[in-house]
Amino acid sequence: MNIYPFTGVGIGPGDPELITLKGLKALQQADVVYYPATRVEGTNVVSFSKRIIDHYDLLCPCKPLHFPMKPASRHDDYRQAWETVKADIVRGLRVAVVSEGDLLFYSTFGYLLRLAKAEGFDCDLIPGIPAFIHTASIGQLPLVDEDRSITVMARPGSFDKVQQALDANEVVVVMKMSILRDDWAAFVKQCNRPFFYIEKAGTPDQFFTSDVTELAAREIPYFSLIVFQ
Amino acid sequence: MNIYPFTGVGIGPGDPELITLKGLKALQQADVVYYPATRVEGTNVVSFSKRIIDHYDLLCPCKPLHFPMKPASRHDDYRQAWETVKADIVRGLRVAVVSEGDLLFYSTFGYLLRLAKAEGFDCDLIPGIPAFIHTASIGQLPLVDEDRSITVMARPGSFDKVQQALDANEVVVVMKMSILRDDWAAFVKQCNRPFFYIEKAGTPDQFFTSDVTELAAREIPYFSLIVFQ
Repeated sequence: MNIYPFTGVGIGPGDPELITLKGLKALQQADVVYYPATRVEGTNVVSFSKRIIDHYDLLCPCKPLHFPMKPASRHDDYRQAWETVKADIVRGLRVAVVSEGDLLFYSTFGYLLRLAKAEGFDCDLIPGIPAFIHTASIGQLPLVDEDRSITVMARPGSFDKVQQALDANEVVVVMKMSILRDDWAAFVKQCNRPFFYIEKAGTPDQFFTSDVTELAAREIPYFSLIVFQ
Repeated sequence: MNIYPFTGVGIGPGDPELITLKGLKALQQADVVYYPATRVEGTNVVSFSKRIIDHYDLLCPCKPLHFPMKPASRHDDYRQAWETVKADIVRGLRVAVVSEGDLLFYSTFGYLLRLAKAEGFDCDLIPGIPAFIHTASIGQLPLVDEDRSITVMARPGSFDKVQQALDANEVVVVMKMSILRDDWAAFVKQCNRPFFYIEKAGTPDQFFTSDVTELAAREIPYFSLIVFQ
């Protein structure tokens, strides 16, 4: 089906030096590299991945795969993205597809992988460092150890769901917390557990705090994450 | 307190090429590298980390920090390990301490960090890829996405605890499952959920299966992990 297995590369949480040796080598050996990009209405194309791979001075072409923010048309967009990638694979090119963070942990790459596997394409997957793991290093925060358990959730539907996770686990991480437009500071206060909040981790706009008063003053962006311990 | 911040480096799950660029650079710039090692009774010293860093042909000395398997004396051993590391830091050496996987995710490094911070020492932390993230790439298994939640637990005390996590989450990862000496195959069978079992991931003895009959035939080792979806 494919001469070369196509390669998925998790490029890590943002710092270009947090890619693995294996991941960078795969990008350097590729004939073409695809990266996810979002066309935001009324603005230009936004790609967090592109900003990372620009640092590697790759000699091959780097091309966007467009994913919109709207869930409605997602299925069609993933199909379209896969067809684009597939066309290069069947031409015999060594194709790499990148994803920020890890490939298979809250990443759109999982959808491409499902489509590729359904059609019997071979692939090599190279993992990357997820954002919540990087956050622990930034905060110098031992995350979880011994026989403790950790729950990671994204886009929580309600504070009840977060509270249930807090009741059942020693550590809880909530990603993309801005989806819940309610008062996070009030919720955090009544939890009465140590927390670490970070937004735009690894960028020049990075901000973090463990102080609920500081949290109350923030307008929480999409790229935000909170760790409860 | 220290001239150079000491550096913690997560060296990843086993494949020497799954270290980050930043992590390898830190090891190459260090004056001394410490790695965790276990003295198993009646045998030699065992160090998974040492086998990884041997691949980097580092020019500086690499020295073990001994941690026993027995929890009883742990506190003293961590203290002893920290005193050893500290002696080199205060001599003005650039000291790196490695940990397999990530530094702060089920790692002994967290204990050293607590001791270092309690004495006001500066450090730089470089994250690494945790084993469960690598497992997803090995199994080509989209782990978690959208608004789903994932719980990771280690050394589970009972199947009830695993079942509770299964009831509350779309994805559950159990590490060091051999601690529960009961019949995993029987438990997995009654769960009736897709699963992926892996042992000794990334080593020549790596074995994985999603077949409960194959699982039933295994003698589950310490370095084992199961993902339920």
